[in-house]
Amino acid sequence: MDSDFGIPGELSALQKHRSLYEPELPPCLQGTTVRVEFGDGTTAADSSGAHSISRSFPHTYGQPLAHFLRATVQVPDVKIITEHPAIRVGVVFCGRQSPGGHNVIWGLHSALKIHNPNSTLLGFLGGTEGLFAQKTLEITNDILSNYRNQGGYDMLGRTKDQIRTTEQVNAALTTCKALKLDGLVIIGGVTSNTDAAQLAETFAVAKCATKVVGVPVTLNGDLKNQFVETNVGFDTICKVNSQLISNVSTDALSAEKYYYFIRLMGRKASHVALECTLQSHPNMVILGEEVASSKLTLFDLTKQICDAVQSRAEQDKYHGVILLPEGLIESIPEVYALLQEIHGLHRQGVSVDNISSQLSPWASALFEFLPLFIKKQLLLHPESDDSAQLSQIETEKLLAHLVETEMNKRLKEGTYKGKKFNAICHFFGYQARGSLPSKFDCDYAYVLGHICYHILAAHLNGYMATVTNLKNPVNKWRCGAAPITAMMTVKRWSRGPGASSIGKPAVHPATVDLKGKAYEYVSAAMMLLRQNATKFLMDDIYRNPGPLQFDGPGADAKTVSLCVEDQDYMGRIKKLQEHLDKVRNIVKPGCSQDVLKAALSAMASVTEVLSVMSAPSFSSHTPF
Amino acid sequence: MDSDFGIPGELSALQKHRSLYEPELPPCLQGTTVRVEFGDGTTAADSSGAHSISRSFPHTYGQPLAHFLRATVQVPDVKIITEHPAIRVGVVFCGRQSPGGHNVIWGLHSALKIHNPNSTLLGFLGGTEGLFAQKTLEITNDILSNYRNQGGYDMLGRTKDQIRTTEQVNAALTTCKALKLDGLVIIGGVTSNTDAAQLAETFAVAKCATKVVGVPVTLNGDLKNQFVETNVGFDTICKVNSQLISNVSTDALSAEKYYYFIRLMGRKASHVALECTLQSHPNMVILGEEVASSKLTLFDLTKQICDAVQSRAEQDKYHGVILLPEGLIESIPEVYALLQEIHGLHRQGVSVDNISSQLSPWASALFEFLPLFIKKQLLLHPESDDSAQLSQIETEKLLAHLVETEMNKRLKEGTYKGKKFNAICHFFGYQARGSLPSKFDCDYAYVLGHICYHILAAHLNGYMATVTNLKNPVNKWRCGAAPITAMMTVKRWSRGPGASSIGKPAVHPATVDLKGKAYEYVSAAMMLLRQNATKFLMDDIYRNPGPLQFDGPGADAKTVSLCVEDQDYMGRIKKLQEHLDKVRNIVKPGCSQDVLKAALSAMASVTEVLSVMSAPSFSSHTPF
Repeated sequence: MDSDFGIPGELSALQKHRSLYEPELPPCLQGTTVRVEFGDGTTAADSSGAHSISRSFPHTYGQPLAHFLRATVQVPDVKIITEHPAIRVGVVFCGRQSPGGHNVIWGLHSALKIHNPNSTLLGFLGGTEGLFAQKTLEITNDILSNYRNQGGYDMLGRTKDQIRTTEQVNAALTTCKALKLDGLVIIGGVTSNTDAAQLAETFAVAKCATKVVGVPVTLNGDLKNQFVETNVGFDTICKVNSQLISNVSTDALSAEKYYYFIRLMGRKASHVALECTLQSHPNMVILGEEVASSKLTLFDLTKQICDAVQSRAEQDKYHGVILLPEGLIESIPEVYALLQEIHGLHRQGVSVDNISSQLSPWASALFEFLPLFIKKQLLLHPESDDSAQLSQIETEKLLAHLVETEMNKRLKEGTYKGKKFNAICHFFGYQARGSLPSKFDCDYAYVLGHICYHILAAHLNGYMATVTNLKNPVNKWRCGAAPITAMMTVKRWSRGPGASSIGKPAVHPATVDLKGKAYEYVSAAMMLLRQNATKFLMDDIYRNPGPLQFDGPGADAKTVSLCVEDQDYMGRIKKLQEHLDKVRNIVKPGCSQDVLKAALSAMASVTEVLSVMSAPSFSSHTPF
Repeated sequence: MDSDFGIPGELSALQKHRSLYEPELPPCLQGTTVRVEFGDGTTAADSSGAHSISRSFPHTYGQPLAHFLRATVQVPDVKIITEHPAIRVGVVFCGRQSPGGHNVIWGLHSALKIHNPNSTLLGFLGGTEGLFAQKTLEITNDILSNYRNQGGYDMLGRTKDQIRTTEQVNAALTTCKALKLDGLVIIGGVTSNTDAAQLAETFAVAKCATKVVGVPVTLNGDLKNQFVETNVGFDTICKVNSQLISNVSTDALSAEKYYYFIRLMGRKASHVALECTLQSHPNMVILGEEVASSKLTLFDLTKQICDAVQSRAEQDKYHGVILLPEGLIESIPEVYALLQEIHGLHRQGVSVDNISSQLSPWASALFEFLPLFIKKQLLLHPESDDSAQLSQIETEKLLAHLVETEMNKRLKEGTYKGKKFNAICHFFGYQARGSLPSKFDCDYAYVLGHICYHILAAHLNGYMATVTNLKNPVNKWRCGAAPITAMMTVKRWSRGPGASSIGKPAVHPATVDLKGKAYEYVSAAMMLLRQNATKFLMDDIYRNPGPLQFDGPGADAKTVSLCVEDQDYMGRIKKLQEHLDKVRNIVKPGCSQDVLKAALSAMASVTEVLSVMSAPSFSSHTPF
């Protein structure tokens, strides 16, 4: 491959200006010393799956959290690393490009060179393919100069997001040994980080010296858990998409003749759609998670939209904006089941032309009901993670088509007396994910890059770089690392009464779970949305966050999802540790009987409550 | 109609910040005095059509140019207007919304109130429909506060762009009389300004006191001539589109697996596509004007793109970005002819279902060759100006389809040995035209609004507000007004040998005319493009102008088209007048014989050269 990666084009004036921006470092990452404090060993949030996870990851499960501390903090057990031998690190982009990715590499390079100018950073060319084939580019300041604070992954390129098959894992192992890497940094989303954990375990078993580190970079915003508040790229994607959605809303309100159906890239979960809704106030949003939890059919959805169109027509409004996440199609139970059948036939090697004739009667009935263009798209081969090719399935056109058909029917029957329904469809994804990264994503990615070095300096393997307290200014950010295994869950599928199958442990995409923990995180946002749903639907209170700004007011805006959430799990874990330490200090051998009694009684009731709360619930997960 | 126009929603932080921005006024518009200098009577640039234009516009053709002067300038014949009785003005949005439109109204309102606080500005609700039905909203500072520097036309709304039929013209006349309007300001593009000129003439004939003023506001950027350098909205549209095209280019370069076919809104002419090309450096752009002038067929275009794809594949490149103007489809001669037949059958009242069977044999052959989705789109009713519904015809999908078919054929035949060709299609239009306006468009529109008042204060009818020298800072802008009739041309179509038909005088969209005057204007840009065409095609020197900025570097950027052009026609006309005045002053009665002889001889040769140059060329216009 005659690659052009790393060869810069002409930068525009704004690109040049951006390339000069220097992100700030939080105090804990400043200086030339690495100060790491370890917490207790970690468990998996999914206590029912913990056993299965620990069995799959004997070397890397249960490792402690790591917190990186500022120089001024006085903590007894902190490990201070002042010796920094030159090390060799490889870095690879995995999966869909996400704005800010380049800054992870810049941050990592900068940290490496600050601690030892003789350290080496090798970028793998063309993503995982470059990793398998040992194709590298040594990262230098000169190469970086054109990619600092710029979008895309074009400095190194990317291919598939998987390092999974035995062949792939072995190729990666061979590469890391051949290049004598001390560390391998994997930049990607849920799939790539699951693979990073597997690679770390494999390397540990093989006694390979290379430590594997993951970085949460995905525009989907679905790598969310106790340790990870948001992902690099999510902020930018939501801002660019919101700008466009708002522009379209302004257009709708000016011309008053079209309904815009807008599908948003973001994989299975609806995080992007939710954030864009909070930014732009469209008339409707259909969250995949709501559809799945309420088990809405295509017919229900069509009816809901048609009723809304009709209510608006009664107020003489013939325009509107409706958002759909790209994962919606898989959230509709009957379509999901149809897709499962199709994918099953794919796995059996049935050719595309023959699939429709081998569907079960009910699946066949649904399939035949659908318009031709959607049939073709549903028949596409599934993605590497077994999900449908969501970016290729034009759900927005399907719904617009179904709504138009139904509105025409109502018009004919006389139950609808308004003007003809007109839809325009959009898919926003590619035009956002290549954007210059927002200031937030520049900062976040750069800091994560620095943390990767700290993780490697502390010789940690199978960890993900984390920053918490992100909604506050950079100098308040808390930097740390968490074992990737602690973010894993195990999925169970019921296969008829009594039978169930168990998936492999993996970092699963966090959905906007309306009943579970994730919902807690976004509940403020969701409540806001619910309270305003009727106003949004009927009153056109469109809002335009405007284009991404790099200077002046607006440049420091963060996503609503991040700001309304009260996460800081890592901060709380630390706080708890402080409480436990205090109890231990107060109730030292020699303390009074009364104090000891009070402590025992209080702690006994605390442990009892917590034991009950933490018991495996065995609640079934819907793998929609 | 229960209208929500003028009812503001919640403004975002950036929207609020923008609403506080106060555009600067050029010195000639400052103060409370209007100082107007008249030039010579105007002619039409199209000398062959001048007679026909003057006959159609006896009252409004041949009026002089007007220049508005700063207080400090000493000119003998300047008319100084210090008395400003309270006046009543109506304003209407016509045609597609274009960013900055609201600022024309703000500027006009501000100028009205500065000169007399008792003046009244009435906005027509719902565009021309509001004008015909006398539905108005009195514009106040309170209403404006939420629309200053904001996008869209939602303060007043808009409907059709035409005031053309006798019924429509009479309704407008009735409204202006009933509301006792001293002025009617029409905000729109070529169609609306042609209608404005017709309305001005009709009002003059009917001795209606309302003066009609046009304002060049159209995202297409095709209302360009000696007097008008650019249009309100064009700057913003090109910037937002270029941002998205560049993001997609970054995406292409990162993933290296797709060809992106991007169609750009902008009607018949390719100005938007040209400017976006100069901003973003995509791999290819297909200008409609080039296709029309070279008479390229669909087959030629397909082959050109396929050959480019193949050359790139030989360099192991399987991605690319190709821009198409929405007008391209009408520029392909055989498709244009097919559309003419279809539109002819529409006019004869043939139903859509029967059109295909009544086409001529060759048109039918082409039609049957096309894929189904394009057939449906070509059969749509034409627009009010007889052009096809360009926004609805997915030329990008047609070309992607033809290229894919051809590449598959080459692959099968073994003449192409690369990877499978994959295309993703986009249409960028709606997501740009609702944007917050750029600083340039905010300023330009606001200044034009002020000029409208100056035109009305000078009692001019049938004029368009103009600003020249736009590529320089606002304090260097020259403000004036030109009769709309001076911008008109008359089209001739040859109807077989010897026979030709003549169109109505109209302000026609300026195309990127590769042989004519327009080409002169953009030649620098076109040369830049041509010189770099191969580099653009093969080397991926993508450039990302980034998102629209309102603060910091980049906020003052202007379009390349504007900056490379050397227009300032109005400035040169003034300069010429100065030369003529000087000659007259030097050669006053009483001067020496020698001086007189020299002047006579010199001027005789000047007039001879100019007569030859100005002779009607009768060159035929291609009405593609």
